[in-house]
Amino acid sequence: MDKIARIDMSTAGGPTVTMTELGEYAGLGGRAMTSIIIATEVHPLAHPLGAENKLVIAPGMLSGTAGAMTGRLSVGCKSPLTGTIKESNAGGQAAQVLARLGYAAIILEGKPPTDDLHKIHISKDGIKITVDNTLRLLDNYPAVAKLREEYGDKVAYMTIGSAGERKLLAASIACTDPELRPTRHCGRGGVGAVMGAKGIKAIIIDDAGMKMRPPKDPERYRDANRKFVEGLRKHPVTGEGLPAYGTNILTNILNEAGGYPTRNFKSGVYEGGSKLSGEAQAELEIKRGGKATHGCHRGCVIQCSGIYNDADGNYITKQPEYETVWSHGGHCGIDDLDTVARLDYLDDNIGVDTIDMGVAIGVAMDAGVIPFGDKEGAIRLVEEVGKGTPLGRILGSGAAITGKVFGVERVPVVKDQALPAYDPRPIQGIGVTYATTTQGADHTAGYAIATNILKVGGDVDPLKTEGQVELSRNLQIATAAIDSTGMCLFIAFAIMDQPETFQALLDMLGSFYGITMTGDDVVALGKKVLSAERDFNKRAGFTAAHDRLPRFFYTEAIEPHNQVFQITDEELDSVFNW
Amino acid sequence: MDKIARIDMSTAGGPTVTMTELGEYAGLGGRAMTSIIIATEVHPLAHPLGAENKLVIAPGMLSGTAGAMTGRLSVGCKSPLTGTIKESNAGGQAAQVLARLGYAAIILEGKPPTDDLHKIHISKDGIKITVDNTLRLLDNYPAVAKLREEYGDKVAYMTIGSAGERKLLAASIACTDPELRPTRHCGRGGVGAVMGAKGIKAIIIDDAGMKMRPPKDPERYRDANRKFVEGLRKHPVTGEGLPAYGTNILTNILNEAGGYPTRNFKSGVYEGGSKLSGEAQAELEIKRGGKATHGCHRGCVIQCSGIYNDADGNYITKQPEYETVWSHGGHCGIDDLDTVARLDYLDDNIGVDTIDMGVAIGVAMDAGVIPFGDKEGAIRLVEEVGKGTPLGRILGSGAAITGKVFGVERVPVVKDQALPAYDPRPIQGIGVTYATTTQGADHTAGYAIATNILKVGGDVDPLKTEGQVELSRNLQIATAAIDSTGMCLFIAFAIMDQPETFQALLDMLGSFYGITMTGDDVVALGKKVLSAERDFNKRAGFTAAHDRLPRFFYTEAIEPHNQVFQITDEELDSVFNW
Repeated sequence: MDKIARIDMSTAGGPTVTMTELGEYAGLGGRAMTSIIIATEVHPLAHPLGAENKLVIAPGMLSGTAGAMTGRLSVGCKSPLTGTIKESNAGGQAAQVLARLGYAAIILEGKPPTDDLHKIHISKDGIKITVDNTLRLLDNYPAVAKLREEYGDKVAYMTIGSAGERKLLAASIACTDPELRPTRHCGRGGVGAVMGAKGIKAIIIDDAGMKMRPPKDPERYRDANRKFVEGLRKHPVTGEGLPAYGTNILTNILNEAGGYPTRNFKSGVYEGGSKLSGEAQAELEIKRGGKATHGCHRGCVIQCSGIYNDADGNYITKQPEYETVWSHGGHCGIDDLDTVARLDYLDDNIGVDTIDMGVAIGVAMDAGVIPFGDKEGAIRLVEEVGKGTPLGRILGSGAAITGKVFGVERVPVVKDQALPAYDPRPIQGIGVTYATTTQGADHTAGYAIATNILKVGGDVDPLKTEGQVELSRNLQIATAAIDSTGMCLFIAFAIMDQPETFQALLDMLGSFYGITMTGDDVVALGKKVLSAERDFNKRAGFTAAHDRLPRFFYTEAIEPHNQVFQITDEELDSVFNW
Repeated sequence: MDKIARIDMSTAGGPTVTMTELGEYAGLGGRAMTSIIIATEVHPLAHPLGAENKLVIAPGMLSGTAGAMTGRLSVGCKSPLTGTIKESNAGGQAAQVLARLGYAAIILEGKPPTDDLHKIHISKDGIKITVDNTLRLLDNYPAVAKLREEYGDKVAYMTIGSAGERKLLAASIACTDPELRPTRHCGRGGVGAVMGAKGIKAIIIDDAGMKMRPPKDPERYRDANRKFVEGLRKHPVTGEGLPAYGTNILTNILNEAGGYPTRNFKSGVYEGGSKLSGEAQAELEIKRGGKATHGCHRGCVIQCSGIYNDADGNYITKQPEYETVWSHGGHCGIDDLDTVARLDYLDDNIGVDTIDMGVAIGVAMDAGVIPFGDKEGAIRLVEEVGKGTPLGRILGSGAAITGKVFGVERVPVVKDQALPAYDPRPIQGIGVTYATTTQGADHTAGYAIATNILKVGGDVDPLKTEGQVELSRNLQIATAAIDSTGMCLFIAFAIMDQPETFQALLDMLGSFYGITMTGDDVVALGKKVLSAERDFNKRAGFTAAHDRLPRFFYTEAIEPHNQVFQITDEELDSVFNW
């Protein structure tokens, strides 16, 4: 990863590619790379769909190596959904392949003078950009199928569906998994709309002829990786819960904790929760000849994904994640896994964030567009997004816009991004993260659920205010660093509980780059990333007043704990005082 | 005006009315009253459609007196469109009638527990609130017609159309004119949505048995008023241009100046401008048996309004204002006054701001929803707003939402409120006002056109940066004060050019209240209002980064002057340094 490619889409004779050295961005990867480039180069008041915005694609620091779990790809830009800086990362194959080709970042710049659709082919022979309008308005599954006819099965694909082409604010970028399904999405913040605005339909990444990235100290790296994998395998979350049931193991846990937001955040318990649970899901998957255990990229040892088939054994979608099952399930009063799977497929195919999409549907239900629990209605609404009807465009613009257009007061968003599947009133720690993260409401930015509910990395009472700010601060710092390594965030469960596994991660980084890497270095990296992001957001007009939850979380207590969000403004404003 | 009525819509047994003395709000009127109440009492992060927001209705300091031009009514709230504090004022009869009943303000609070529609009857016998669901989804003309059957013709009506009931972000509040037509709108910022969210369909104000408010010094007041009227009559704008041609006299002037935003701000000259001009409009109105000269409230001596009939002599609408003719005309590439009149009627009837509505249509045209120049298409789009279809809801949410939902980059808004009919690139002074006013883009907040183009109050070259900040600052201060008096803003032309007319205004205020009133007092009042508004906005999260025009005004030069907006950020940030 010794070079950066800049692709300028603005030039009249067609896009131009410039190869540069890393320069000031040397040593960065993943989120650190995307966020520091955006903060450095993008005008904070740029229109997110305009020529001044950039879309940065960056593998993590350890992507493309033989290390386990190193397959996360970061995509960064100014978000059309939130107006903040945005880093959205996904699994799939793209990060490994791009890293092996030596690219520390691909920077998509400018805006094409025509409305042609482009595809970008990246291989050892360089970068080739061609116009291909035959892909127009193909959704992700058919788009990848068509591209495979031309480029085959030994490459990684990044595509946008019709939502990205239509520049919908919740549009995602799909990355193919090892079986070349477009199921791993940079979902949040509308990164797909930015790709669409730049006239790019697909990126094909071919690492034929390239090798694993070599560590500076191969033996030490191999050893550290072995210890790291051992640590993941022995932790109950990464070694047992996630492989067996995937992220959806959380449905029962959150429902029992009274923190499962039900019917647009009106209750913390969903009576239909058990029908949506990971346990029920895994049983169904196995029974129907799907898979309850599957990795989204080669090198994954957690294998939290799966394959969801219909009753006849035909593929519907990859195993829907917990947040997706929630957003389309309990949030909408829908207790049917087959409906959720169908919606997950539609989201992946059209190319929209499953969280903002599902939350938007629940908000529309609250407005009376369709009733809560209307399974067929929910499917019809997402199909409207794929058709680009006015109603579909509203919903595909996410929960905040849907709330505004339908005159809804109870709109669960922060910085216009939909809240995920954890109510911040019975779980105060995650509320601190939602309110203060640089990304808009995002559970992954500082997953306080770990310590509030799962008792990983300690035990902070979710109902109390004590310790939540410190918890969220530390998690946000650690997450910003992990998101820069290319490591899947789920390694956090093991490294928070097992010092030797954290040390193994440090050793992997150290031995790969031939440096010494300490816990302090990780903290410094995380703070550096967050500081760059905060600085961008400040220049874009974000203030402490934006680091708040919507008012109804402060004024409406939720069952069963009958509690409002209680972290004071002063406490929230201290999250980044380090 | 010695009392304030607070109407709490939240109470379970039906709304409750509390009468209070003026207390800390004594001496305030109009915008000073609404803005200081909102800034004092409303949580800056309140959801605009929630119980925490308030809708304040306040006549001006001189409303209800025998003084000329004192019929403006201010309505204030936290705006659902902009998120800022909002004052939107209108003519019509309501201010005079409410003032004569002694109300300095009506404050609508809370949110009803049911979705019943209420009407509020205000008379010398007090305030009576009744449920009336027979009014549901009636637009303003039929709603007023129905109310007249019950309350007759000697009252003033304030109503919302279907847009307000649907809580659309561009919904207005209609005030009836002397002929009881619902043509005078508090248009900007979605104040109608706030009234709708509070479950209030209509306010009926009956001043039977009440008298003109008596001045402390009747003789001096009468004398000052006489001089004031003389001044208005002798100034060329208020004595000749506005009476003869209305505000639409500006079409030819702005088009000739190259400052007429055409087809969504792509040019400063519209080839069809002369067909839309005030001169053509007045000729047509007279020929068809309408009126080119008409006052929107009793006591008006400028008479800038009119009556627009169809070719058969049947009433279509009141004379469309310049901004309306522009937003539905040149902005959309439509050069037909009959189409504009039909759209003006639809806007008034449905109850939406004609500026945000027209700009939204132009933005939708830029997105390809319908072509520029599509007259029937434009009418159909506004009819969709009245039907509450998804497309209608998008458009009725204003230009900012329309741009987001349709993925448009060129969206002429500041703080999510649509720019009015003056391009800020060839007229830099108005750009300073658009960017920095507390209200979101608003020409009336500091009408630099006066001095940049009309050469009223001096002569500041519109193409240069020199003097624009000072001009906008002084105008914003003066406007905030005038908006507090109940005076129509159009008096500004005469008082800016004629010191004796300004002195007459000071004498009216002084003699009415039995105080001495100097120019410095007016400036102090204006600064007090702006400071309260700025303070609210700051607490609501607005910063210098929001006091900017959209980026395309800085990057795309516009014909014929080939100039971008050139006022620096530092200059913009100095507007409120006084």
